[in-house]
Amino acid sequence: MKFHLEAFDPSTKARAGRIETDHGTIQTPIFMPVGTAGSVKAVHQRELKDDVKAQIILGNTYHLYLRPGLDIIQKAGGLHGFNGWDRPILTDSGGYQVYSLAGTGRKINESGVAFKSHIDGSVHTFTPERVMDIQRVIGADIIMAFDECTPYPCDYGYARSSMEMTHRWLERCCVRFDSTDSVYTHRQALFPIVQGSVYKDLRRQSAETIASFEREGNAIGGLSVGEPAEIMYELTEDVCDILPKDKPRYLMGVGTPANLLECIALGVDMFDCVMPTRNARNGMIFTTEGTINIRNEKWKDDLSPIDKNLGGYVSTFYSKAYLRHLIRSDEMLGAQIASVHNLTFYLWLVGQAREQIVAGNFLSWKKGIEKKLMQRL
Amino acid sequence: MKFHLEAFDPSTKARAGRIETDHGTIQTPIFMPVGTAGSVKAVHQRELKDDVKAQIILGNTYHLYLRPGLDIIQKAGGLHGFNGWDRPILTDSGGYQVYSLAGTGRKINESGVAFKSHIDGSVHTFTPERVMDIQRVIGADIIMAFDECTPYPCDYGYARSSMEMTHRWLERCCVRFDSTDSVYTHRQALFPIVQGSVYKDLRRQSAETIASFEREGNAIGGLSVGEPAEIMYELTEDVCDILPKDKPRYLMGVGTPANLLECIALGVDMFDCVMPTRNARNGMIFTTEGTINIRNEKWKDDLSPIDKNLGGYVSTFYSKAYLRHLIRSDEMLGAQIASVHNLTFYLWLVGQAREQIVAGNFLSWKKGIEKKLMQRL
Ligand SMILES: [Zn+2]
Ligand SMILES: [Zn+2]
Repeated sequence: MKFHLEAFDPSTKARAGRIETDHGTIQTPIFMPVGTAGSVKAVHQRELKDDVKAQIILGNTYHLYLRPGLDIIQKAGGLHGFNGWDRPILTDSGGYQVYSLAGTGRKINESGVAFKSHIDGSVHTFTPERVMDIQRVIGADIIMAFDECTPYPCDYGYARSSMEMTHRWLERCCVRFDSTDSVYTHRQALFPIVQGSVYKDLRRQSAETIASFEREGNAIGGLSVGEPAEIMYELTEDVCDILPKDKPRYLMGVGTPANLLECIALGVDMFDCVMPTRNARNGMIFTTEGTINIRNEKWKDDLSPIDKNLGGYVSTFYSKAYLRHLIRSDEMLGAQIASVHNLTFYLWLVGQAREQIVAGNFLSWKKGIEKKLMQRL
Repeated sequence: MKFHLEAFDPSTKARAGRIETDHGTIQTPIFMPVGTAGSVKAVHQRELKDDVKAQIILGNTYHLYLRPGLDIIQKAGGLHGFNGWDRPILTDSGGYQVYSLAGTGRKINESGVAFKSHIDGSVHTFTPERVMDIQRVIGADIIMAFDECTPYPCDYGYARSSMEMTHRWLERCCVRFDSTDSVYTHRQALFPIVQGSVYKDLRRQSAETIASFEREGNAIGGLSVGEPAEIMYELTEDVCDILPKDKPRYLMGVGTPANLLECIALGVDMFDCVMPTRNARNGMIFTTEGTINIRNEKWKDDLSPIDKNLGGYVSTFYSKAYLRHLIRSDEMLGAQIASVHNLTFYLWLVGQAREQIVAGNFLSWKKGIEKKLMQRL
């Protein structure tokens, strides 16, 4: 993996770059659609390419390990072969999922986490080493270190000891990763994760520790878990200022369109979030004019395209009234249209941000569009 | 609407023709995907055209009348404008739905049916005249007469009196239809429906009555409702022999791939059925090699395409193992892939049948492929 910085915004900390992987180039800042179980919900791989124009998608270690399982993924030549997505993939380590999904039966100690599958109750153990081995088999281009993602709120003592264990686990992840080879013909990069909950001193300490590992990119985890946005922005800025400038910075699980622009301005290069697809299924539509609750009466006979400014089949072919009808009728096509549309909007937004950074006009563009994005239509 | 017969199979009663409508040509025999509420479940309009190669789709009067409602459909310029499907559409009259869905609150008498909406319990009345008016507004190219669809089994007395009422309703449908104009710029054709349950004499009587109305096409309703396939075939043959040769014959709600071939051989030109999409959602996949239950263990690591003989994105891009994973994981993409694939298969099957009829080779082709189709892989 290589990262090239191409432009810096003169008025903010925003930057435009490109990440080169063996599955192709990612232009940053970028948003990564979430494909937890090997599928971006309700979206065909062809639509991800042609309509959404996704450059990289996410997979989840916990989910893919449990189902379909490693033997099938390996037989398919990794996740790329299994789901047919031949562009870059990033896998989350499952640190978050073993806490949230397999919550009841889990036991955590220094060696790792024992947990029960949310599918069949079977017992499994994730250690930092095991999670590296699993992500080798899944074969994503970028893989994540195994961490503990603390909930919000979280007391200082727990946040500190958890962060320290995450750092020790990172050391073990690196040793294992560096002593093993790719299972397939393409290379993989390992990103460590900054933790430390909402505590500035912990976040700075974690950022310094993570930076000292000198991996190919760095992630910020444990934010956007319920804390106020202002705190998230402050901590993100602090951490970005410490993380090396010449490596991509990935803010995990963020966020709204406004969150993305704010954090791009702080120096973040990569984002993922289930919001565009999850909210799509509930009828929340992000457009270039503002946010729409398509279930509202006011759209019932609005025959204008979902978003005529966005281009692309789904956003211009279908009307708001038709989408409203489908969502209210629980027709699957409603979720499909809304999901493709929202993702198309997210990828459009980061693409526009990139253009504006390159043009040196990011800040004034951001101020103009933010007002629109925050609007409830 | 015009119907041209182009070829007759020398060994069966199969025929190849084309129906010309103001929204384009339909090559018969044809299968029509069901889009009850204005959407073929889980399938984009673009996919219906480019992948499935559907030539005509169905809508349902009962569903569309209740939601989104006639005012919205009319404002959109009819169903074509509302859902963006610019090829031919056929609407079912809602006769079947007011019985099956609005079953509890309904009251039937000579004038029509009062029923409660399955959505909000509101009370509505369908009369033959009202159903014509509604279908004028929905604006399908082919609309259906309002009938009573008898259940199976059904005693002879009820079947006869119901059929007789259906005939009287047909007279009222025709009067109303012929005294009104299209709401939009394209023309509409009205198809009457043969009823008579499983009773040969009633079916023949109904076919003769329906034929005497000399409409542009004729339908056979009330079959494939639970009776043995052999009885369905016998009655279909009897009825086809009576219905005029120079008009399209539409067998409603049929059926399996084998049912289609058998009934094409008896002289049926048009079919619809929810089977390819409904069964797709449950993991039943129709292929050129036989039928697959994709949930079965045996497909878990079968990385071959869903159906390499079929062509088209969905059937060749995705593997059986990936589809199995998606269906078992309740990922929407599983239903999407399976639905597009099964419909592609159905359209391929009737397209092949047509080619074989034109080539004069239908019967021997049918014998060869039927064995495969009946196979459970
Ligand atoms: Zn999120
Ligand atoms: Zn059926």
